[in-house]
Amino acid sequence: MVHPRVLRALSTPLVGHLDPAFLSLMDEIQELLRLTFRTRNQFTIAVSGTGSAGMEAALVNMVEPGDSVIIGVNGVFGSRMAAIVERCGGRLICVEAPWGQIVEPDAVAAVLTRSGPVKAVAVVHAETSTGVHQPLEEIGRLCRQGDALFVVDAVTSLAGVPLEVDAWAIDVCYSGTQKCLSCPPGLAPLTLSERALSVIRNRKGPCQSWYLDLALAADYWTEGKRAYHHTAPVSMLYGLREALRLVQEEGLEARFARHRRNSTALMAGLEALGLAPFPQEGYRLPSLNCVKIPAPMEDRAVRSELLQDYGIEIGGGLGQLQGKVWRIGLMGESSSQANVLHVLSALEAILLRRNWIVRPGTAVESASRVFATSPAAQ
Amino acid sequence: MVHPRVLRALSTPLVGHLDPAFLSLMDEIQELLRLTFRTRNQFTIAVSGTGSAGMEAALVNMVEPGDSVIIGVNGVFGSRMAAIVERCGGRLICVEAPWGQIVEPDAVAAVLTRSGPVKAVAVVHAETSTGVHQPLEEIGRLCRQGDALFVVDAVTSLAGVPLEVDAWAIDVCYSGTQKCLSCPPGLAPLTLSERALSVIRNRKGPCQSWYLDLALAADYWTEGKRAYHHTAPVSMLYGLREALRLVQEEGLEARFARHRRNSTALMAGLEALGLAPFPQEGYRLPSLNCVKIPAPMEDRAVRSELLQDYGIEIGGGLGQLQGKVWRIGLMGESSSQANVLHVLSALEAILLRRNWIVRPGTAVESASRVFATSPAAQ
Repeated sequence: MVHPRVLRALSTPLVGHLDPAFLSLMDEIQELLRLTFRTRNQFTIAVSGTGSAGMEAALVNMVEPGDSVIIGVNGVFGSRMAAIVERCGGRLICVEAPWGQIVEPDAVAAVLTRSGPVKAVAVVHAETSTGVHQPLEEIGRLCRQGDALFVVDAVTSLAGVPLEVDAWAIDVCYSGTQKCLSCPPGLAPLTLSERALSVIRNRKGPCQSWYLDLALAADYWTEGKRAYHHTAPVSMLYGLREALRLVQEEGLEARFARHRRNSTALMAGLEALGLAPFPQEGYRLPSLNCVKIPAPMEDRAVRSELLQDYGIEIGGGLGQLQGKVWRIGLMGESSSQANVLHVLSALEAILLRRNWIVRPGTAVESASRVFATSPAAQ
Repeated sequence: MVHPRVLRALSTPLVGHLDPAFLSLMDEIQELLRLTFRTRNQFTIAVSGTGSAGMEAALVNMVEPGDSVIIGVNGVFGSRMAAIVERCGGRLICVEAPWGQIVEPDAVAAVLTRSGPVKAVAVVHAETSTGVHQPLEEIGRLCRQGDALFVVDAVTSLAGVPLEVDAWAIDVCYSGTQKCLSCPPGLAPLTLSERALSVIRNRKGPCQSWYLDLALAADYWTEGKRAYHHTAPVSMLYGLREALRLVQEEGLEARFARHRRNSTALMAGLEALGLAPFPQEGYRLPSLNCVKIPAPMEDRAVRSELLQDYGIEIGGGLGQLQGKVWRIGLMGESSSQANVLHVLSALEAILLRRNWIVRPGTAVESASRVFATSPAAQ
């Protein structure tokens, strides 16, 4: 769900992408993005593509043929990063973990120690395919010690769970607009530390992508330069500014607390329905709630009834988890008490109708108890 | 300028990018794009990026390291294609022409004959940096004879001047949404012939871009498959559908006639002000009107007064043409009698005020004579 103010911003009449009025909007977006990423990085922009374009931009700019790159792989998006590193001609070193588990910092440390020089270590902060919430601080420290760049995929975490780009020594961090920022999909916020920028400036050869070449993009996003690279997606940037303003008006801490509260209530309700969390305990995302589907419940039947009869879309499993889990997003605007109670009521009704559960009322009751005992932030 | 119906479409509340309601919207967009490109190509999509992403997608999918590629270079966008071919490791063969001139089909023929096997020939249909309207049919025939793929940049031509993807044997054609389609920037319509598709299917190695890998995109855009690749930019696609509907409601032939009529009137007015056309006679784009700046007129002073005092943005020269030409777009919604008269009146007032012309009234009069003698289409 997107806030009506963002929808309205999208329909603002357009100005040129080099118009002074538009350039000041870009300055404002950069400053709002810095606040949201919690960084002072000068290079903080919105890449003209979806979150996957942010991932590709992050990797193709950092990795040159032959560079060793460690990727934490514990779900679809870690695998995607690995695929991109291979397409860059990088020497790929995967630190794998079972889906649903975090990538252990100790495992990263062990590989870093025995790998020789490593150009970058990349992990997914919020693995959308499994609901795992990856801890970052320890890996950030290891990267600084090992002189490797730390690359973080924050697509489903930015503005939903705490993320500290500067404090956690993250060199490259990217996200997508359509998750916890509650803006339509189409842009990828991205920030680079000075270390990452100097890697780009000292490449041996040009970046293999022209469109996503951040050295060229920098000349457009730098105040005073504003050199034409490609035409900026003006309407989407109108929308993003409004979404970022909403984030600041709420305040990041209040926003994180809201995400936690709604997720706790949802999970209490889901457990009452017999749906156990999929990810490792202690590492569960509030923005993406992933639960196992117990026999005899059927994945597709439930999801299509939810969509058709209740207008609720939940995610099915991706890759090896197909048919095995449900993924319920509570991101940004969509993380609300109303949505938690709506999806639990709907699920309960569907499961009762099919005799997959026997007693009504427990899901909503369990969630309501959480809401009653943890008051919403002011 | 974007039609109010398109602005309204952008602010439509979102559905998921795999929602059945959204998938049928994608079918509709594909069909409307086929009508606009004048093609029966099954693979006709909107790439999730601006026109430059379309260019990169076209080239990185077709070109593998070592492939010989002929690029017609007579402006900024031909040079950009050449840069991308080099980043793909292609063997670049430039057929250059002075800026403002077309790339002669005979010159392409000569190079094709002596170059050995050529994978692709790429030219820019509407060179936005010079206002040149490149003829395509003859080069299309040469490509079929020489078994080379014919790649066409139609960023500033699609829906503004005649373009016949099938009839002119074009294998890969891409455009941008913000030119003659009058949709905000952010998407790149792209179509591939069966020949081009089979080249993608038979690549030796994977495409160097994951985000722009058309083999992966195909699985999302194919009815019945709809496999997740990256999240589609939903709002932008709402806008594009509406813009394409407006194109069909007007009719392509009527739209081309409107672009011609308004351009003829504008050029009559500009010549009355002493501004001569920059491009070679007989090959001038109606969507992008490029004129030389005669001494003592000053580029920046005029453009900033136009913007500040009249709210009119015209383009300055790019690259080697900086300070030497003005580029006046009359594209899509912006190609109107009102805009022609507005920009001529404003230019005349500015030039008079600075004593760069002596007599008032001739520009608007000359344009009005064209409007009077060539009635608008019904």
